[in-house]
Amino acid sequence: MRTALVIGTGLIGTSAALALAARGVVVHLADHDPEQARTAAALGAGTDDAPEGPVDLAIIAAPPAHVAGVLADAMRRGVARGYLDVASVKGGPRRALEALGLDLSSYIGTHPMSGREKSGPLAATGDLFEGRPWVLTPTRDTDTEVLNLALELVSHCRAVPVVMDADAHDRAVALVSHMPHLVSSMVAARLENAEEAAVRLCGQGIRDVTRIAASDPRMWIDILSANPGPVADLLTDVAGDLEETVRALRALQSSDEAKRLEGTSGIEDVLRRGNAGQVRVPGKHGAAPRVYEVVAVLIDDQPGQLARIFADAGRAGVNIEDVRIEHATGQQAGLVQLMVEPNAAPVLSAGLRERGWAIRQ
Amino acid sequence: MRTALVIGTGLIGTSAALALAARGVVVHLADHDPEQARTAAALGAGTDDAPEGPVDLAIIAAPPAHVAGVLADAMRRGVARGYLDVASVKGGPRRALEALGLDLSSYIGTHPMSGREKSGPLAATGDLFEGRPWVLTPTRDTDTEVLNLALELVSHCRAVPVVMDADAHDRAVALVSHMPHLVSSMVAARLENAEEAAVRLCGQGIRDVTRIAASDPRMWIDILSANPGPVADLLTDVAGDLEETVRALRALQSSDEAKRLEGTSGIEDVLRRGNAGQVRVPGKHGAAPRVYEVVAVLIDDQPGQLARIFADAGRAGVNIEDVRIEHATGQQAGLVQLMVEPNAAPVLSAGLRERGWAIRQ
Repeated sequence: MRTALVIGTGLIGTSAALALAARGVVVHLADHDPEQARTAAALGAGTDDAPEGPVDLAIIAAPPAHVAGVLADAMRRGVARGYLDVASVKGGPRRALEALGLDLSSYIGTHPMSGREKSGPLAATGDLFEGRPWVLTPTRDTDTEVLNLALELVSHCRAVPVVMDADAHDRAVALVSHMPHLVSSMVAARLENAEEAAVRLCGQGIRDVTRIAASDPRMWIDILSANPGPVADLLTDVAGDLEETVRALRALQSSDEAKRLEGTSGIEDVLRRGNAGQVRVPGKHGAAPRVYEVVAVLIDDQPGQLARIFADAGRAGVNIEDVRIEHATGQQAGLVQLMVEPNAAPVLSAGLRERGWAIRQ
Repeated sequence: MRTALVIGTGLIGTSAALALAARGVVVHLADHDPEQARTAAALGAGTDDAPEGPVDLAIIAAPPAHVAGVLADAMRRGVARGYLDVASVKGGPRRALEALGLDLSSYIGTHPMSGREKSGPLAATGDLFEGRPWVLTPTRDTDTEVLNLALELVSHCRAVPVVMDADAHDRAVALVSHMPHLVSSMVAARLENAEEAAVRLCGQGIRDVTRIAASDPRMWIDILSANPGPVADLLTDVAGDLEETVRALRALQSSDEAKRLEGTSGIEDVLRRGNAGQVRVPGKHGAAPRVYEVVAVLIDDQPGQLARIFADAGRAGVNIEDVRIEHATGQQAGLVQLMVEPNAAPVLSAGLRERGWAIRQ
């Protein structure tokens, strides 16, 4: 890819343009608001001059409701060899394009799974997509050349390509993004008229739960309007859990022991299912849950031994991920199991031995 | 305070003990499971030997359901001059103690607003409470000496004391902690049986919303069992919003334009109320929303000017918090408004002038 045209220089369009420009691609920038394109150009994302002939790839980064119209216009003008959009919903735009009777072999619907609470070109950054999934939804009709242009874009943005069916994608983003967004808003909404003394007690928990509720409502109205069915289905499931949980809490207020036990088990159920779901959320860079190796150290149970082990591990440059302590019943000596990254285990063993600790083989 | 006794060496008890021990207080550690107290002692939180006479302050850090019993036992044994608990619910324990007919002048109910997903002494850290609110619920009967011992503990832990009525506290924590916790679990629960391809698309949004769903269910059953009424009331309010939102999403699926507009306004309502509530959540250290000063720089709209300003601001050691760009219509020149911390504004102005930029007075 030598040339690209980004239509729509908001957060996503400008971030992709910054990544492409940094890798030597000549990027043209366009927006229905020329000021936005100028701002993106001023940030170093490319030029807001129109390209003189067709570019290799046109990236449509307009709001979901406008994607089909902007794409159809660009395709009719023949501005590029390949076309893709980055809208957060994929089924609707495709059906709208099909309804317009366009040849879609040069088009591929995509969705980079990156975002920020802030929007607009000034929030853009060339590393926005780094390590994040970028969904591609080719069909049997998609030109291989166009798929490869999309893969090249994803690679330049250092994202991880994931191929999916458009409708499966829409159900998945309802689950991992749209439903949680609305629920976050509903929790935050309860604070709107709360007493100041109560709000002062907010901690990291509610801060995290409500962070995404700070997002721009206009953008989210567009996103949710393009995917209402799957989101409504999921919220209905949540409403069922909510009803059960209120019932369980009311049972806990009962003076009847059997009812209270019922309440406890209802609360336990939702908390345990929450545990089971949460553990599936991948880590920051989509990494699988980590597997650690154990280094077992003998201690004689004097105060401060654990603190000394941690300090010595730090001096050996090893980060301890978790710890378990085993004591032989009735004895003063015990065994400390240190969980570390597999490649850190030999370093830690050697470092602790050097500092006088007994390592169990 | 010279001596303290911590009864219950989990996360909170051990963290408080670490903070006190670091400030020279002689701390005795006790737990119904002696292994836990030994582990806390091994971490440097104090000694698990019993005190020889009454200590200055007894800190009861047992689970909520056991607080009243453990407190009553400690008071009857006369182990301290003053007593406090750190349970996350305050109305119930006080009523239970009153029902036992104890003289409560030497007792004060408190609640440090700190927590982690991890529990137990190994998760403890002496700075767990730093900058966090620590609620104190004295009554007219509380001895001033006991209030002062509690304030000394809070100060040693570098927390921020907040005085509240016990029942107002319980409604407040239902709002800022217990309700969000259950909602987080319900969002996470939807992932339990989700397809792997969908789970792969999880991003920072759902990761934040579901983080607290990883907590220990046993601990949360205790907390919620002690505060079911206020939590159920709030979840019922959330359920009302949820119902409205599902109705709005279904309206968005309609082919009738008027219905779709109704749906849009329903969605907009919950998102905007979410914005209004989210903005009230205090920053990391309970700080008020920051007020910035504006430094206005004239630019001539050449590509890369904004990037140069940012680089020059960085060289001046100033962090730009936000930016706005104003363009005089039809002109190439414009004005960039840089938002910075008040004390950074003169530094930035001087630094940019030095590098040739025109600053508007």
